[in-house]
Amino acid sequence: MDASAEIICVGTELLLGDILNSNAQYLAQQLAQLGIPHYYQTVVGDNSLRLQRAVAIACERSRLLLLTGGLGPTPDDLTVAALAEFFGVPLVERPELIADIEQKFAQRGRTMTANNRKQALLPAGAEVLPNQGGTAPGLIWEPRPGLLVMTFPGVPREMQAMWETTAAPYLEAKGWSSSIIHSRTLKFWGIGESSLAEKVAPFFELENPTVAPYAGGGEVKLRISARAASPEQAASLIAPIEAELRHITSVDCYGQDDDTLASVVVGLLKARQQTLSVAESCTGGGLGQMITAVPGSSSYFWGGIISYDNRIKENWLGVNPQTLATVGAVSAEVAEQMALGVRERMGTDWGLSITGIAGPDGGTAAKPVGLVYIGLADGSAVQSLERQFGGYGDRDWIRYISACSALDFLRRTLLDVFTPT
Amino acid sequence: MDASAEIICVGTELLLGDILNSNAQYLAQQLAQLGIPHYYQTVVGDNSLRLQRAVAIACERSRLLLLTGGLGPTPDDLTVAALAEFFGVPLVERPELIADIEQKFAQRGRTMTANNRKQALLPAGAEVLPNQGGTAPGLIWEPRPGLLVMTFPGVPREMQAMWETTAAPYLEAKGWSSSIIHSRTLKFWGIGESSLAEKVAPFFELENPTVAPYAGGGEVKLRISARAASPEQAASLIAPIEAELRHITSVDCYGQDDDTLASVVVGLLKARQQTLSVAESCTGGGLGQMITAVPGSSSYFWGGIISYDNRIKENWLGVNPQTLATVGAVSAEVAEQMALGVRERMGTDWGLSITGIAGPDGGTAAKPVGLVYIGLADGSAVQSLERQFGGYGDRDWIRYISACSALDFLRRTLLDVFTPT
Repeated sequence: MDASAEIICVGTELLLGDILNSNAQYLAQQLAQLGIPHYYQTVVGDNSLRLQRAVAIACERSRLLLLTGGLGPTPDDLTVAALAEFFGVPLVERPELIADIEQKFAQRGRTMTANNRKQALLPAGAEVLPNQGGTAPGLIWEPRPGLLVMTFPGVPREMQAMWETTAAPYLEAKGWSSSIIHSRTLKFWGIGESSLAEKVAPFFELENPTVAPYAGGGEVKLRISARAASPEQAASLIAPIEAELRHITSVDCYGQDDDTLASVVVGLLKARQQTLSVAESCTGGGLGQMITAVPGSSSYFWGGIISYDNRIKENWLGVNPQTLATVGAVSAEVAEQMALGVRERMGTDWGLSITGIAGPDGGTAAKPVGLVYIGLADGSAVQSLERQFGGYGDRDWIRYISACSALDFLRRTLLDVFTPT
Repeated sequence: MDASAEIICVGTELLLGDILNSNAQYLAQQLAQLGIPHYYQTVVGDNSLRLQRAVAIACERSRLLLLTGGLGPTPDDLTVAALAEFFGVPLVERPELIADIEQKFAQRGRTMTANNRKQALLPAGAEVLPNQGGTAPGLIWEPRPGLLVMTFPGVPREMQAMWETTAAPYLEAKGWSSSIIHSRTLKFWGIGESSLAEKVAPFFELENPTVAPYAGGGEVKLRISARAASPEQAASLIAPIEAELRHITSVDCYGQDDDTLASVVVGLLKARQQTLSVAESCTGGGLGQMITAVPGSSSYFWGGIISYDNRIKENWLGVNPQTLATVGAVSAEVAEQMALGVRERMGTDWGLSITGIAGPDGGTAAKPVGLVYIGLADGSAVQSLERQFGGYGDRDWIRYISACSALDFLRRTLLDVFTPT
């Protein structure tokens, strides 16, 4: 068994789903940064017997147990007592903790309650893991040779401060942190997870750095994670792999880490000093919202028309009533007229449009829910895309994917025609 | 051992802290609503041996195993294979799943890859838990007498749809749900959690139904939860409490359960058969997106202008250049001119506008980041609101709260002037 850690979160509110387990995510990130392997997380309620069972299992497979929650003054806070009982060690009241808790109450102009005396009890032999932010102290304890236990309160703010101030430095000093993990995430649009996986399959065999795919929100990501002694070393391990992956996936890779399709598009417009306006039907403003979520986008995005009603398409975008009457609002022709109209009337270099059927109603056999047309116009030409997003998600999903696809259409167009000088 | 459930979430991204474990929270809430006891949650990475160990432990202490994640097409998706290996049952390719996956790819205009064939493999004897939203099917399986296993993809949207459509009804039909918990959530805008809590404090002492406050996303909610033998019984316990709470909180309560500020506003417009258009600056389309997220909104929402650039404010909304030059784009005057302009030019009954400083840059001492003006015009008058959303959140937050506040401004105006006949 290698020196791996296990996170045990204690709290019935977690089992009821009243709160998200953000403590587990925080500690997981911290362990990864310290390069301490971590294979299991357990959530258990405020129940001494079940908590002791969870600790018994964790002792068999991990050498560092990080427990959060159950350190409060109320009867259902029983983490410390359960640990003492499981390891067969008596609880001892720590005078320095009594003094500390009394002082904290005094600071708030309150007097310590009898309940709080309980928070001054620690197993014999355990060290105090100080909590500057609250009355619940944690502990650092080696109840058995080769087994280290740390407890933290469930309040994220207190837990995080205790980790940064005491726990992490302690683990580094004791040699737990052999190496760090540094990651780079490549983001893709317009290629499915399975197709991407086939293209880069050999990379999944790598051991350091590792390459792993993730899918979600309509996009696919490849995470390159390197274990090394320093961030610099990790970066030098990642760089050549990233270069190969970018070469293989080419334009399907739209960015990395915190990039969004919108931020990449704004960056491309900025590089060309060009401006954009949008005309939205089924997305109702979602495309404009994505673009304006990018700070500084105002220099390149002038605005748009939400032409939800056909009257707006005609009067504000100059869409031909004949076209609306013949081929209908959801058509390549109307998408192109919308793009041309908004570009010309707003006086921008590019006009980008979306018209489609987001559902749940309004679909027909010929034009089912999810049918979307995207139009893109510049000074020289207008083009359009037809997409079918039905069957995969609801109205929100279709609208979201439509806006992302419009951004990707513009991105690819900008990349093809733009040659950096 | 009573008939308790255990949640096992599979994914190395959880161990790396890349994502929050929202699936565990969702399933925990669902189990609580069905009254199915649930004492443990486990997180394990994409590792067959460790996953099998976690399953072995879960089998000893729980009778319903809910697994999420690891159903994808890539090599690190190994949940189904690990389950088959652990229970010593061969994997069998299901022709109906192959057909289903091929059809879903066809809908997207893509062809199925060899990787995806893997998703059609299920242990002999397992039933398919259909996934309408993606290519990864789940399973419902009784590998041993008295042990029920269900798998779900890690993608929350797919997992939740599968739970609601198939898994929950299955468990109810099989008698897993002893007593049920039925809830009604009242939603509030324009009142803080502490003020609301003071108004309704006595209700927090109730035991069945219980009343609990939740805050998040700028709004406050009161959840009324009743435990009963049937939804009807629960509803009759909830009704009188809900009536009292609505009476006490009056117009601050904008809706319930799935209501949104936008859906309530669309409902009020529908009741009056009136139409709305919007003019957005700092929200860049977010207000229109919220409104058009409501199915059927097209009859009452005609469209809008995203006037991100001042040229658009002048040329498309008729905002006075003098006003822009003197008091600036972020002002009550400009908000009112935007509302008047979009209403008049689009020919709708109402015009709603937002102009503000979303940040992170662009703030001054006189006009700090977070300063927002909302304008509202109808045929008879124009009014505006000044709000300061700085200091609480980032650019996204300020934009979101601004759009919500504009909807609430219109909602309260419609309620005051509208008397149902």
